[in-house]
Amino acid sequence: MLISMDGIDGCGKSTQVALLAEHIGADRVREPTDGRWGRLLRSLDQPTLEQQLAYFLADRASHVPVLEEAAGSEAVHRVSDRSYLSTVGYQSFESPLSPDLLERINLALVPPYDLMIVLDLPVEVGLGRVASRDGTRDWCETEDRLTWVRQVLQTWAAQRDNVVLVDASPLPEEVFAQVVAAAEAASVAQFGQVVWTPQARGVDGAPR
Amino acid sequence: MLISMDGIDGCGKSTQVALLAEHIGADRVREPTDGRWGRLLRSLDQPTLEQQLAYFLADRASHVPVLEEAAGSEAVHRVSDRSYLSTVGYQSFESPLSPDLLERINLALVPPYDLMIVLDLPVEVGLGRVASRDGTRDWCETEDRLTWVRQVLQTWAAQRDNVVLVDASPLPEEVFAQVVAAAEAASVAQFGQVVWTPQARGVDGAPR
Repeated sequence: MLISMDGIDGCGKSTQVALLAEHIGADRVREPTDGRWGRLLRSLDQPTLEQQLAYFLADRASHVPVLEEAAGSEAVHRVSDRSYLSTVGYQSFESPLSPDLLERINLALVPPYDLMIVLDLPVEVGLGRVASRDGTRDWCETEDRLTWVRQVLQTWAAQRDNVVLVDASPLPEEVFAQVVAAAEAASVAQFGQVVWTPQARGVDGAPR
Repeated sequence: MLISMDGIDGCGKSTQVALLAEHIGADRVREPTDGRWGRLLRSLDQPTLEQQLAYFLADRASHVPVLEEAAGSEAVHRVSDRSYLSTVGYQSFESPLSPDLLERINLALVPPYDLMIVLDLPVEVGLGRVASRDGTRDWCETEDRLTWVRQVLQTWAAQRDNVVLVDASPLPEEVFAQVVAAAEAASVAQFGQVVWTPQARGVDGAPR
């Protein structure tokens, strides 16, 4: 199965991606990737909207075979740190491109995700976590932009069957319980059963 | 050098691309390419605007290394049948994306072209040539759209130093004389000389 996690910075994506990948025996991937366009995008301090669009789409297109191997598969599982949902949120902010248009452009490229988890968190909480973590903000992390992104992701979760909102406010172990529940529900809905053998481990990685 | 030719269907691009490539000892390339996204795009009868955008950008991104080898080179020459200028024209028609925005998105991806030739032709002449050639029209060849495309390409030629308009109304041999003059002028402007040894041949391919 192909499962993604999106959300504003500070929502705990990296932690939850690592935990879920371990739990279901999946490869971890991320967007932007470490390919040419992803590296270029990461190297820019303040990319223009046009650079963001061009590099995110080019990067994602090059990554499609990796996504396709997992999408709809009972045997191959990938958990992605961010997906096109982030483009739908971030690149539609103060942009000539609507979230709907950005979704349609991206859906022309990528296979359907089996599950897209949105880790939902109040913007001020996310910004507080980021500030205490590294003290610096990325180009995409202004309060106005994050407020917009959060609202777009909430809307998508309410309107798309494969997008599920998870409250990212509680402690990581509690969030992870919701993440696992969402993944198992998606697997049962699609295949009639949970298609992985859970690797039961605690949040600290130690076997229970 | 990296040289492209764009223009509405029926303008004689294929003929002129072949002649110029032969004349300057260049490889011929084309967009959409024969790669994954280019083939997908060609296979669609009536792609949506979003599919057009996604596949043209993905296709072009995968093609960038080929363009980069020739751009600014005195030794490696490529002549491309279409470039991002076609995207600027065709995908801005009745679109939320302006020609300027499309240009900026594409310029984030591709290297600067040394010369972009626009083969200019009245729309009714182009449509007449296409009708007499194969009797069918592509999805992109409506009169309204072609009128828009022609106007955008004319504007670009007037405003960009590396975009040159060539009148595609005369006989192929006369058009070709203008094409060679434009290519030689671009070479001299950039390198102080013509950087190829002309292969003098007639339009029919026979040595003169």
